[in-house]
Amino acid sequence: MSADGVFRVGLLGHGTVGGAFATMLPLHADRIERLTGLRPELSGVMTRRSGSFKEILEGSDLIVELMGGIDPTRTYLLEAMRAGRHVVTANKQLLSQHGEELWECARVCGVQLRFEGAVAGVVPVIRVLQEALAGATIERVHGIVNGTTNFILTEMARVGMTFPEALAEAQRLGYAEADPSEDVDGRDAAAKMAILARLAFDTPVSLSQVRYEGIEHIQPDDLAYADELGLQLKLIGTAERVGSGLSVRVHPAFLYPGHPLASVSGPFNAVTVESEAITEITMSGPGAGGPQTASAVLGDVISAMIPPASTPPTSRVLEIVGDVVSAFYLHLEVADQPGVLATVAQVLAEQDVSVKSVVQRGLGAQARLVMVVHPVLESRFTEAMAALAGLDVLRAPPRAIRVLEEEFG
Amino acid sequence: MSADGVFRVGLLGHGTVGGAFATMLPLHADRIERLTGLRPELSGVMTRRSGSFKEILEGSDLIVELMGGIDPTRTYLLEAMRAGRHVVTANKQLLSQHGEELWECARVCGVQLRFEGAVAGVVPVIRVLQEALAGATIERVHGIVNGTTNFILTEMARVGMTFPEALAEAQRLGYAEADPSEDVDGRDAAAKMAILARLAFDTPVSLSQVRYEGIEHIQPDDLAYADELGLQLKLIGTAERVGSGLSVRVHPAFLYPGHPLASVSGPFNAVTVESEAITEITMSGPGAGGPQTASAVLGDVISAMIPPASTPPTSRVLEIVGDVVSAFYLHLEVADQPGVLATVAQVLAEQDVSVKSVVQRGLGAQARLVMVVHPVLESRFTEAMAALAGLDVLRAPPRAIRVLEEEFG
Repeated sequence: MSADGVFRVGLLGHGTVGGAFATMLPLHADRIERLTGLRPELSGVMTRRSGSFKEILEGSDLIVELMGGIDPTRTYLLEAMRAGRHVVTANKQLLSQHGEELWECARVCGVQLRFEGAVAGVVPVIRVLQEALAGATIERVHGIVNGTTNFILTEMARVGMTFPEALAEAQRLGYAEADPSEDVDGRDAAAKMAILARLAFDTPVSLSQVRYEGIEHIQPDDLAYADELGLQLKLIGTAERVGSGLSVRVHPAFLYPGHPLASVSGPFNAVTVESEAITEITMSGPGAGGPQTASAVLGDVISAMIPPASTPPTSRVLEIVGDVVSAFYLHLEVADQPGVLATVAQVLAEQDVSVKSVVQRGLGAQARLVMVVHPVLESRFTEAMAALAGLDVLRAPPRAIRVLEEEFG
Repeated sequence: MSADGVFRVGLLGHGTVGGAFATMLPLHADRIERLTGLRPELSGVMTRRSGSFKEILEGSDLIVELMGGIDPTRTYLLEAMRAGRHVVTANKQLLSQHGEELWECARVCGVQLRFEGAVAGVVPVIRVLQEALAGATIERVHGIVNGTTNFILTEMARVGMTFPEALAEAQRLGYAEADPSEDVDGRDAAAKMAILARLAFDTPVSLSQVRYEGIEHIQPDDLAYADELGLQLKLIGTAERVGSGLSVRVHPAFLYPGHPLASVSGPFNAVTVESEAITEITMSGPGAGGPQTASAVLGDVISAMIPPASTPPTSRVLEIVGDVVSAFYLHLEVADQPGVLATVAQVLAEQDVSVKSVVQRGLGAQARLVMVVHPVLESRFTEAMAALAGLDVLRAPPRAIRVLEEEFG
């Protein structure tokens, strides 16, 4: 790397992910400099149409490859590693077809080849398989590793759309490409499963060895019956030991509700790793998207810049805040007489506590009033509770439990 | 490290996790030697009753601390790092109270201090925060980081037990200690949230700054009402930006069904990390248990032994298996006439396909027969499908989709 404390990052490709990465890098340069002692700078950008690979290579300490495709990408990456440059890539097709050659080249050249963004976007499954689980004997990996098909299946189940309708919707929302064939026929997921299987089972696996099936033939009434049977349909990638061999495959499969992948919906990805010692670990998050995949790439760049994890000194002291905003469940035992709800509502309103939903139930001379209130500063809610406790109509101390609002996609 | 290719691991503590680690290390020594070039060996074990710390220290390249407590553990770890030894610990109380001193010592001494086992057992949340998300600006961390309380709340909701009944059940099954007070009053979760908040927000956070509440006061009828309102109760740890400050707290909270932590049940742990660029990542798995926590510790030991991740050459070539065992959903459009189900069942039985559940529905002159069959070799099922397709009573080609059996805890 440069003697001037700068770490030069050369970028191949400037599409959705490449563009997001180029925007993100300068925004995080201060933080990365503090973490690593080196300031990352974009030293050059090459696309299929413009730029010279030789110049990018000469001016960089690390190459980020977000151009995709097999040729000339494969040649570029081999050349970069042979010239002693670390490489970060999100190219699943390349790794699933030429992974052994590239990994071998990285070892021989003594450089890092990182590829977190190639599988499941920002979900750190590559790092976890390579590092946290390096000592584990893995029995099985299950994954929802294609966000396009998971979005389509979620929509088909939710509103009864046909496959073509849900695909059109996915395209409209940017969750599917104009040519979605590699996503919907399972080939994209198969490439990702080949990479995961290679890492999890420590044996060569290439895309051509993965059996795959897509979701084009799924009918809305299959999903309706599934609902009756309590099942969720997902496009599932599986890599598992079978006797002394390994099976790697991708196909639509129904899941029972207890399965950790059953609740993964919309464009999200998730991977479950099973082993006897660890039982199972499940990781989930957005599987694609420019900023998300670029975040995974940035994490790889930072890792390539630093020696193994340390805990750097804190850079600031944030105030630790006591009073926050929460929604609450409120349980009141009250006298069953007219006007009680109005009295309670008045006390709540005085502290700006606003009611979202109420369940009221009579119990002879007394009643239960159970409600969920909208988020409010906790100190205000505590005052409201104290005021409620002092009401004549209360038959027991009020009980409250916080409610987390739904903030997730 | 020793010149003879051996990496000497000194162990402090031989309880549930320490004992599991001591058993596990030799079983994985071959694999670790292949990964790192060094063979790990247990060079000595010290407990509170036996062994000399000085001897352990002199004979080790790395110290694994699973003894717990603050004193003399803190002194041992500082001494080990000052003597140039890497340290791996699962001691959440120590890190949440004296973390800054220990991390500072590791930096100054140029050694690694790793602690994946301190939070959420085998769920790799520490590594992900320190490495994969090193470049991310995190907005919020939510966690279910205490398995005892999650098990108790799950049982209370599932079968209407009171808190004392569910606690007794947890103790009977080994999910709660004889003295469960630090688990049920929220202090254990608070220590873990202090550590997560420190890493996620890059600011000093100690246990004394975390507000916590336990689950002792939760009533079964709160859970019954929650069920009516569609809510799940969990003991939730939260660390989030509030204005220019930070709030870190632990309390029971209701979750809506769409929340990624709502489906985490039994003794499992899970952590969700939110940031604008990554949206959110959720990781879940067993939060405790000897072999599980020992696996996290082993992952840390391996990481301390090696430079940043590389992809080592494969050590073997597993056969890629084509024909596997699967359960199936089967959809048949048949003539609505007597004996059809018997005919279909006969064809299935000839290929050892056994029916688990059936939904039958008339549709004028034809009927739909939708069933789920038990796991069977896929080639046998394919033959059954071909035979079914040839039946006179079939009104459309049969349709089949795989079903993943429930294999999870």
